[in-house]
Amino acid sequence: MFDILLPADSDQPLYEQIYRQIRTRIQEGKLAHGTRVPSVRTLQNLLNISKTPIETACQMLIAEGYLASRPRSGLYVSNPYSSIPGSHSESGERLSARSPNPNPLLSSGESFIDFDPSAIDPEAFPLTVWSKMMKQALIVHEKDLGRYGEAQGERGLRAAIAEYLRNSRGVTCSPDQIVVGTGMAYSVGVVAKLLDGIRRIAVEDPGFKLIRDQFAWNGWEVVPIPVREKGIALDELERSRSRLVYVTPSHQFPTGEIMPFPERERLLRWASSRDGFILEDDYDSECRYVGKPIPSLQSLDSNGNVIYVGTFSKTFSPSLRMNYMVLPVRLLERLRKLEREVLSPPSRVEQWAMQAFMEQGHWYRHLRRVRVLYRAKHRHLIECVQRRFGDRVEITGKDAGLHIQVSVLRHRSSRELVRLAAEAGVRVYDFCNMHLDPGTVAPTPTIYMGFAGVSLSDIDKGVKLLKEAWFEGS
Amino acid sequence: MFDILLPADSDQPLYEQIYRQIRTRIQEGKLAHGTRVPSVRTLQNLLNISKTPIETACQMLIAEGYLASRPRSGLYVSNPYSSIPGSHSESGERLSARSPNPNPLLSSGESFIDFDPSAIDPEAFPLTVWSKMMKQALIVHEKDLGRYGEAQGERGLRAAIAEYLRNSRGVTCSPDQIVVGTGMAYSVGVVAKLLDGIRRIAVEDPGFKLIRDQFAWNGWEVVPIPVREKGIALDELERSRSRLVYVTPSHQFPTGEIMPFPERERLLRWASSRDGFILEDDYDSECRYVGKPIPSLQSLDSNGNVIYVGTFSKTFSPSLRMNYMVLPVRLLERLRKLEREVLSPPSRVEQWAMQAFMEQGHWYRHLRRVRVLYRAKHRHLIECVQRRFGDRVEITGKDAGLHIQVSVLRHRSSRELVRLAAEAGVRVYDFCNMHLDPGTVAPTPTIYMGFAGVSLSDIDKGVKLLKEAWFEGS
Repeated sequence: MFDILLPADSDQPLYEQIYRQIRTRIQEGKLAHGTRVPSVRTLQNLLNISKTPIETACQMLIAEGYLASRPRSGLYVSNPYSSIPGSHSESGERLSARSPNPNPLLSSGESFIDFDPSAIDPEAFPLTVWSKMMKQALIVHEKDLGRYGEAQGERGLRAAIAEYLRNSRGVTCSPDQIVVGTGMAYSVGVVAKLLDGIRRIAVEDPGFKLIRDQFAWNGWEVVPIPVREKGIALDELERSRSRLVYVTPSHQFPTGEIMPFPERERLLRWASSRDGFILEDDYDSECRYVGKPIPSLQSLDSNGNVIYVGTFSKTFSPSLRMNYMVLPVRLLERLRKLEREVLSPPSRVEQWAMQAFMEQGHWYRHLRRVRVLYRAKHRHLIECVQRRFGDRVEITGKDAGLHIQVSVLRHRSSRELVRLAAEAGVRVYDFCNMHLDPGTVAPTPTIYMGFAGVSLSDIDKGVKLLKEAWFEGS
Repeated sequence: MFDILLPADSDQPLYEQIYRQIRTRIQEGKLAHGTRVPSVRTLQNLLNISKTPIETACQMLIAEGYLASRPRSGLYVSNPYSSIPGSHSESGERLSARSPNPNPLLSSGESFIDFDPSAIDPEAFPLTVWSKMMKQALIVHEKDLGRYGEAQGERGLRAAIAEYLRNSRGVTCSPDQIVVGTGMAYSVGVVAKLLDGIRRIAVEDPGFKLIRDQFAWNGWEVVPIPVREKGIALDELERSRSRLVYVTPSHQFPTGEIMPFPERERLLRWASSRDGFILEDDYDSECRYVGKPIPSLQSLDSNGNVIYVGTFSKTFSPSLRMNYMVLPVRLLERLRKLEREVLSPPSRVEQWAMQAFMEQGHWYRHLRRVRVLYRAKHRHLIECVQRRFGDRVEITGKDAGLHIQVSVLRHRSSRELVRLAAEAGVRVYDFCNMHLDPGTVAPTPTIYMGFAGVSLSDIDKGVKLLKEAWFEGS
C-alpha cells in the first residue's frame, strides 16, 4: 500500500511525489480509514531515500487531515469520505460520517469540552430539508446561474427577511433597506463606508472584543463606555463626543443584561438629538427564556437613527456565513452609490435556498425547535452549576441568549479559572478579555460559558470537571 | 380566485392585505402560472375599494416577480415554482423550470440579446454533480455545521486551489498564502487593508471601470496608465510615483491584449526595484484559444511582489460568488493580524463542496467541457461578425477570454453604436466607458461583446440585427 513510485526524471520534489501518491490513495479509498502508516524508518528502507522528504510529506498530510497521529502509536490514515456508502446517497438519512479534524490531537480521544459561546448544536441543523432547498434552488433558478445577482442580496430573500423581522422583532422596513451579507466583519466594513465622515464609535465595555477590533480596522476611533445593570451607561454616552454607538440591547455581550424600555427610549433620544446612529446588534434575540421580548430599538425608532444587524449564525448555522442589516431609509441613496464597488453578497444559491426555507414555513418550525432545545440546555447548565457549586458562584445574564456568566466567589483571578479549567479539559472564557483594557479587574472573578454547542451530557460532565478543578485541586 | 377578504379591523393597510393574499395564493399554487389578473376596474368593483391600494399591491407583486405584464394585454401570474413536479425530485434530470424574471418586460417576448461580458452559459453549469457535492458536503461535515470556519477559507479547499493553480497557471504557493473570498470587491477591500501605507494604485486605461471604482472606495488614489499593444505602458508606469499596479496581463480588459513575456519580466523588475506590488487579475485565463499560455506573473515572481487573483465566476458560476487570492509570503504576518477583523469568507458548505468537486476530478472535466463550449461560441461570433460585416469592422483581442472588441469603420461614435443596437433589441458595450475619462474618443468607434452567456443561435441573430441597425437603418 505504501510502495510509492519515485521516477528519477520527475520534476516534482520527492516529498511532493510521496505526498501526492499517498493522498490520492486515501482519496480513492485504496488506503482505508484507520490504516496504520509504516514508521519513517520502514518507509526509508522501502523507498531507499533519506528521512526528510518522508517526514515532510507526512507533516503535509497531517496538516490537511489525511493522517492523524495517536500518541505512542504512530500515524493512521484518516479518511472522512470512506464512510459514505457509494457515491450517491439519496435516502435523506443522516450518515454518521466523521468530519475531518484539523487538530489530530483531538481525534485521539483527548477531546475538550468547549463552552465556546460562538458554537451551536450541529444536530439541530435541518440537514434533510436544507439539502432539498439547495437542490430546488439550483433547479428553479438554473437560468440565473450564469449571472451575478443583486449586490445588496437577492430581492426575494430580502422580502422574506423583512417579513420575518416585522413579525418577530417588530422591525419595520422594506426589502430595499436590507443588505444581505457574509457576517459582522462584512457588515461593519459596509457601515464604515456608508457613514463616511463619522470617525468615532462608542462601544460597550465590556463588549465583543472582536467587533471592537473590526471597528478599529475600519478606521474608527473606539470610545469605551461602561456597561451597568441596565446596559450601556447613558450618562457617560451623553457626555462623550461620539455620534455613533454600537450596542447589544437584547442581550448585552458578555454581561447578558437586557436594556429596559425607558433606557431604550433615552438612547434613541440621544441619537436623534445628535443626528447620530445606533448600530443595534440583535445577535441572539431569537432565544429568550424569561419574560416578554422588549421591542428592538429599530422598532421604536421614528427618526432613522438605527442600523439593525441580525444573523443566521446563532439559530441556523455559522457555517453558512449569512447575516443581514436593516438600514434607515436616509442611507439608501449612499448605499446605491457603493453597490458593486463595496458590496459583496453571499452565494445566490444559498440565498435562494434560504428564501424558500423561509417562505415555505421551515424557518419558523426550525426556530421553534431550536428554542426548545436551547431552553433545555440553558436550564440544564444553570441547574448543573447551582447543584455543583451552590452559593460559591453567582450566575448572571441568564434570561436570554446562548451563554451565561459565572462569577466564582472566594477564588483567584478569572485568568486562573480559565487555566485550571483548561488543565482539566474544559474550555471556559475569560470575562476580562472583553474589556477594552484587559487588565481590568472585576470585583469577582467571572467567566462566561456558551452552551448551545455542548451536549446535555457534556454540560453535566464539564461542570463536574470545573468543580474539581476550581475547588478540589491542590 | 381574486375574492380577497378585507376585514375592517385588520391593522394592515389595504394594499398590504391584497398583496399578501394574492402572493400566498400564487406561492401555494392556487393561482396557476399564466392566470390572467382581472383589470383594476374589475377588482375595484369586486372588492368595493378605491383604485390606489389595488395598483400598489400589483406594483409590489410585479417588482417581486409574482406578476408580469404583457403589453396591451394586462397582468398575468408568474409562478416559478409551479413547474417543479412534487416537492422531491431525485431523478437528477434538469427540469425546465422558469426562473423568476426581475424585469417583467423581458418575459413578454420582447427579450434582448445581451452580449453581457460578465454573463456565462447557465447550461454549462454541472447541476447534477454540484447538487450531489453540496449534499455530500453537508453530510460529511455535519459535525462542523455548528462552528465558524477559518477566516482565510477552509484549508482543504485552499489546498485544492493551490494544486490547481500550480498545474494550470504555474502559480507556486502553499495553502497558507490563499485567501478564499466572495468576489473582487471583497478581495480589493482585503488588499487595501494588507497594504496599509500605500495610498496610490496605477491602473490600466482603458480597464475594468468597476474595479477602478472599488480602488477609489477603498481610499486609493487611482493613477491611469495607458494600454498599448503589449499591455500597460511600462515606460509611463516607470515614470509614475506608484508602488502598486493593477493589471490583467493574460487578457487585458477590455482590449483583449496579452502581455508578452519580455514585458512581464520588465513589469516584475519594476515592482522589485520599488519594493512594490502587482495585483494580477487572471480573471478569464482558463479560456485561451490561440497559441500557448504565457506563464502568470505570479509564476515568474521570485521576490514576493505579486498578489494573484482568480475567480470561479467565469468558468463555474458568478452566482456562487467565490474567488481566491494568492498572497506573497511576506504579507502573511499582517494577514494573521486582520483575520477575523477583516476577513469574511464564503459559506463553508459551498467551500467543502468545491473542495470535493476539485479533489474528485470534476473540476478538470468541467473546465475541459466549458473550454470546448466557449471556443465554439468564440469562433461562431467571430465568423458571424466577419460574414455579416466583412471589411467594415475590425475585430481585436480575439485570442482568449469571453469577449471580443469590434471596431466599426466608417461609422459614428461608439455611444451611437450602442444606442442603435439597443433600439434593435441587442445589448453591446461601449469601449469608451472603460476609460478613466469617459470623454476619451477612440480613433475608431469600438464596442465590446461578451459571448459566453449567449446561445449560438442568438449570436447569429444578434449579429444580424447589429448589421441592420448599424448599416441598413435610415
